[in-house]
Amino acid sequence: MNSFGRLFRISIFGESHGKGVGVVMDGIPAGIPLDVADFEPDLSRRRSGTSGTTPRKEKDLPTLFSGVYNGYTTGAPLMVLVENNDTRSSDYESLRDIPRPGHADFTSRVKYEGFSDPRGGGHFSGRMTLALVAAGVLAKKIISPATVTSELLEIGGEKDIMKALESIRESGDSIGGIVQCTANGIPSGLGEPFFDSIESVISHLVFAIPAIKGIEFGSGFAAARMLGSQNNDPIVDSSGKTLTNNSGGINGGITNGNELIFRVAVKPTSSIALPQQTLNFRTGIPDNLQVEGRHDTCIALRMPVIIEAVTAIALADFLLIDKKSSH
Amino acid sequence: MNSFGRLFRISIFGESHGKGVGVVMDGIPAGIPLDVADFEPDLSRRRSGTSGTTPRKEKDLPTLFSGVYNGYTTGAPLMVLVENNDTRSSDYESLRDIPRPGHADFTSRVKYEGFSDPRGGGHFSGRMTLALVAAGVLAKKIISPATVTSELLEIGGEKDIMKALESIRESGDSIGGIVQCTANGIPSGLGEPFFDSIESVISHLVFAIPAIKGIEFGSGFAAARMLGSQNNDPIVDSSGKTLTNNSGGINGGITNGNELIFRVAVKPTSSIALPQQTLNFRTGIPDNLQVEGRHDTCIALRMPVIIEAVTAIALADFLLIDKKSSH
Amino acid sequence: MNSFGRLFRISIFGESHGKGVGVVMDGIPAGIPLDVADFEPDLSRRRSGTSGTTPRKEKDLPTLFSGVYNGYTTGAPLMVLVENNDTRSSDYESLRDIPRPGHADFTSRVKYEGFSDPRGGGHFSGRMTLALVAAGVLAKKIISPATVTSELLEIGGEKDIMKALESIRESGDSIGGIVQCTANGIPSGLGEPFFDSIESVISHLVFAIPAIKGIEFGSGFAAARMLGSQNNDPIVDSSGKTLTNNSGGINGGITNGNELIFRVAVKPTSSIALPQQTLNFRTGIPDNLQVEGRHDTCIALRMPVIIEAVTAIALADFLLIDKKSSH
Amino acid sequence: MNSFGRLFRISIFGESHGKGVGVVMDGIPAGIPLDVADFEPDLSRRRSGTSGTTPRKEKDLPTLFSGVYNGYTTGAPLMVLVENNDTRSSDYESLRDIPRPGHADFTSRVKYEGFSDPRGGGHFSGRMTLALVAAGVLAKKIISPATVTSELLEIGGEKDIMKALESIRESGDSIGGIVQCTANGIPSGLGEPFFDSIESVISHLVFAIPAIKGIEFGSGFAAARMLGSQNNDPIVDSSGKTLTNNSGGINGGITNGNELIFRVAVKPTSSIALPQQTLNFRTGIPDNLQVEGRHDTCIALRMPVIIEAVTAIALADFLLIDKKSSH
Repeated sequence: MNSFGRLFRISIFGESHGKGVGVVMDGIPAGIPLDVADFEPDLSRRRSGTSGTTPRKEKDLPTLFSGVYNGYTTGAPLMVLVENNDTRSSDYESLRDIPRPGHADFTSRVKYEGFSDPRGGGHFSGRMTLALVAAGVLAKKIISPATVTSELLEIGGEKDIMKALESIRESGDSIGGIVQCTANGIPSGLGEPFFDSIESVISHLVFAIPAIKGIEFGSGFAAARMLGSQNNDPIVDSSGKTLTNNSGGINGGITNGNELIFRVAVKPTSSIALPQQTLNFRTGIPDNLQVEGRHDTCIALRMPVIIEAVTAIALADFLLIDKKSSH
Repeated sequence: MNSFGRLFRISIFGESHGKGVGVVMDGIPAGIPLDVADFEPDLSRRRSGTSGTTPRKEKDLPTLFSGVYNGYTTGAPLMVLVENNDTRSSDYESLRDIPRPGHADFTSRVKYEGFSDPRGGGHFSGRMTLALVAAGVLAKKIISPATVTSELLEIGGEKDIMKALESIRESGDSIGGIVQCTANGIPSGLGEPFFDSIESVISHLVFAIPAIKGIEFGSGFAAARMLGSQNNDPIVDSSGKTLTNNSGGINGGITNGNELIFRVAVKPTSSIALPQQTLNFRTGIPDNLQVEGRHDTCIALRMPVIIEAVTAIALADFLLIDKKSSH
Repeated sequence: MNSFGRLFRISIFGESHGKGVGVVMDGIPAGIPLDVADFEPDLSRRRSGTSGTTPRKEKDLPTLFSGVYNGYTTGAPLMVLVENNDTRSSDYESLRDIPRPGHADFTSRVKYEGFSDPRGGGHFSGRMTLALVAAGVLAKKIISPATVTSELLEIGGEKDIMKALESIRESGDSIGGIVQCTANGIPSGLGEPFFDSIESVISHLVFAIPAIKGIEFGSGFAAARMLGSQNNDPIVDSSGKTLTNNSGGINGGITNGNELIFRVAVKPTSSIALPQQTLNFRTGIPDNLQVEGRHDTCIALRMPVIIEAVTAIALADFLLIDKKSSH
Repeated sequence: MNSFGRLFRISIFGESHGKGVGVVMDGIPAGIPLDVADFEPDLSRRRSGTSGTTPRKEKDLPTLFSGVYNGYTTGAPLMVLVENNDTRSSDYESLRDIPRPGHADFTSRVKYEGFSDPRGGGHFSGRMTLALVAAGVLAKKIISPATVTSELLEIGGEKDIMKALESIRESGDSIGGIVQCTANGIPSGLGEPFFDSIESVISHLVFAIPAIKGIEFGSGFAAARMLGSQNNDPIVDSSGKTLTNNSGGINGGITNGNELIFRVAVKPTSSIALPQQTLNFRTGIPDNLQVEGRHDTCIALRMPVIIEAVTAIALADFLLIDKKSSH
């Protein structure tokens, strides 16, 4: 399914080199001020052109197709559309039978029996994250005054990001990174035990982003090497504030009022300008593929705003669910 | 929601010190041979009594309440019930107003406004994983001949598990660990791009298990420090087999036919026999709590069978969805 | 799926002649007073033994298995179990290969490939409505002070119900009826346009009840013969009160604050003590079946409390969704 | 929610006088031939201009925005967009504070707190059924070679439709009607007991269409006046064929292989050119409203293709679910 959410539900569609990409958002409360300019800050953070990202330059101007009237959300489904302009399909046509390592070329071929759109990865393209970021703009408004912030902690194991990029730039290779996300102002009591735990829903959405390979909340993998006396967070006041935050702001799947914090691992861009071993599925002969075209050296550079978006989407749904008062 | 799944859907219920725990499974194909004895191997793997786990001894005999007739599943909802026998509520009654660090005592108090069952964590208890393991027994039958296997890689950073347990045993403290899960025989083409990616659904279910703090697929967090040329898996034959398996058997959210592999971080047991700082919410005075009763030194010891169960549950749903033939 | 609902979600399980029937309810607000005695009034209304219903006498004592503590709902899933006591499987064993006209014997045989439980209809039994009525007890508490009431309008086209029963009693035949349901005190603004309209959700649940063949809201089928000037309800005050109520309290799928009103058609009981033409699926020879055992002359007699239950279930979900405040 | 379906899932969006309307369809099998011309027959059946329907003339040319490549569905979400061209917002602006009887003006005002788009009913417009019809085009391809057909049985109680229209045309009033829908070639064994019965899902979708007030399957409301010996359908051969079809092709919520048949009641168009009593919500003074603009005399005339569409949508989902093979 390309839809997710219980009360705030989003459905995404589109392709990298088709007519465009978009998102339908359902369950947005009526009366939220919204202008097309509200999308620009986050879309520009995601946009191509930054150092280390692909030079494809699209203005990515969104159209608010439905669900807005006179500058306010109406409560009806809000559809945001971004048309594609700068596409060069010829870059990809030859790759049809030769799946690129690390990409979905092989798996989409199997799943859709050869009918999937091959141009730029089609629906599997990272360009679909534009729809996530657009939905995140609304989600951030819904959760306001709570806030979500993400930052790139390191790339290639190096905290000096520019230095790491410099070292790799001429090689034709790519590099991974780690992004940290925090949410503040989230009330305690959100989330549910077991299947709809905060971690379950956030990780579900985070792994919907291409290139994510891992996620850890609070002390995360380090907790596996800690003692209970170190990892447990002492409770210091009646708001639930804790001295440390190894839990990442979550106990039993439910927010405890402390900062929500998690980190994700982003793999190196799969498209590289170096020869790679693959198979020509038409001829059955091994091939030594070199991916042409424009590619990001490090997709982790674009990730912070995307991670923020999906986190806000998860929290918006939890907040709307929580607003039902108790008996 | 305490239910999950699209075609194979499970709903869990129960409490640690109430009448028992159980699970309703919907969407099981008719005609699968099933006997109550089929549950014993996995339930016994999860059961208390192992070295490093709490000495609470329950036989955990399941009742197949519905959905089975003459030794075969009928296609109707299958309910499995496990009644509680060996409960000592007095252990917990005094903790009502004094939340234990690391537990859901504080968050459940906030969420349910003081009405949640406090005995042994109530519905938040690790005992609920018994329902997951029971569902896993059916899920494993559905995905057969594909298999899921989990193993404990390390506890407290130590690969010699018995040695690590020995070092901690007398301290009253607890310790975390890392579990690895692999699935073999899974066909390529399962899963969907974005929201229902294999990683999204597996992580959703894995984080439904109490005490999990992180998950990584394939090369995972290490990928963040790798080059694309290292991390991309060369494709070596027309089955999609790859030379390395940094992708963990998944590209674009879809299985590629290689071994599915991921690791999870398990935090140290929250209940420890050492004094911990917390607050008495009745009096508002800080308290120095020492958790009484029986506790696991290392809950990671019980995790492999639980991780297997939720992985099989995820894969069973994907397999049933995939069996719809294409046009 | 044997589950339904968005925030108030129920899952049912069980069989007519198996261990029993039950329901898991998820999303119940914490803090609702609940005692096992609260179920007795509605279960007794549904129970066998009334004039015109089967003489099977079960006490139908429910067990509150989970989700209740110290007399209040905890917010955790609430499971209600009713064990079967008075079952006579021998009544049904011979019908295995000879599907009864009007029953699900043939369709369940096809769908579940011969593995469904044949005893008394198995999971398809009208006894499953006991689970719906049990869920209705909680739903009625959730929607309080709003109320739902149902009544039998006619059976066999006759408003004098006892007279109609008398005329049919000795014949071995059965008879249908019409039930009307009204809900009062429902706030305006519940429901959604299109797929989650009030009519969509109520009809979905009403047709989950075996033997229902039709439903009409407000003026219903009569509206098809009316003029717009007759059918439109004049609005008389700012609460939305209308002079007539042809809309049945719903406009555009959303409650308008007037009485919610609909009627359902209940078919005559399929089991009759008269010979009927069917096929012996083992021999392939036509058969002249006469259904043995205890049967209702008119199942419509039991329907009012069941219709109330599913209506309350629908409204409880809508009310919980609505309680999220707007922006 | 403005989305529906389990494996074939549709999400609709748009407004009567906004940029347009559209639908995202998820779960369409890859490899179905599709051209924009495939939409024309059903869209033209629905289109304005027919005798008795509003003279608004739009070409309703759909754009296949995503999910199609080289003339075949790709398996990715398929978005169909229809832009609005011929809108006259001035017709409606004055009605903002004066809700039209029979319309959603009052209820949408309450639900969305005055923020809903008032132009032509906004998202509540009958124009949204264009999205349903577009989805029906794909659904019909999915269920092929099974077929769905609808016809208008009567309007205003009169089987001579043209005569009935003639009698009402000059009056400024409107008139209701009854539509019958049949599906043939549907395999037996589709649907599920209780919440996902065939009747539950079809009625859910049918009541998503504005102006529907009732639905009855097979003998329907007439069954309430029949004897069991009359209403039960004798089974005549091993395919499940029955002598009569009072069940409408469904037993226990599951298709029995006979023709699926149901009827729906369509209310008279709410917009009429006669004065009606309502309230001016700004001034609090009763008003005598006369709806201006172009309106259908009888919306039932447009209904057959819409009813077909939602029926095909329901059946497409059931068929995809059924294609999973049994164990």
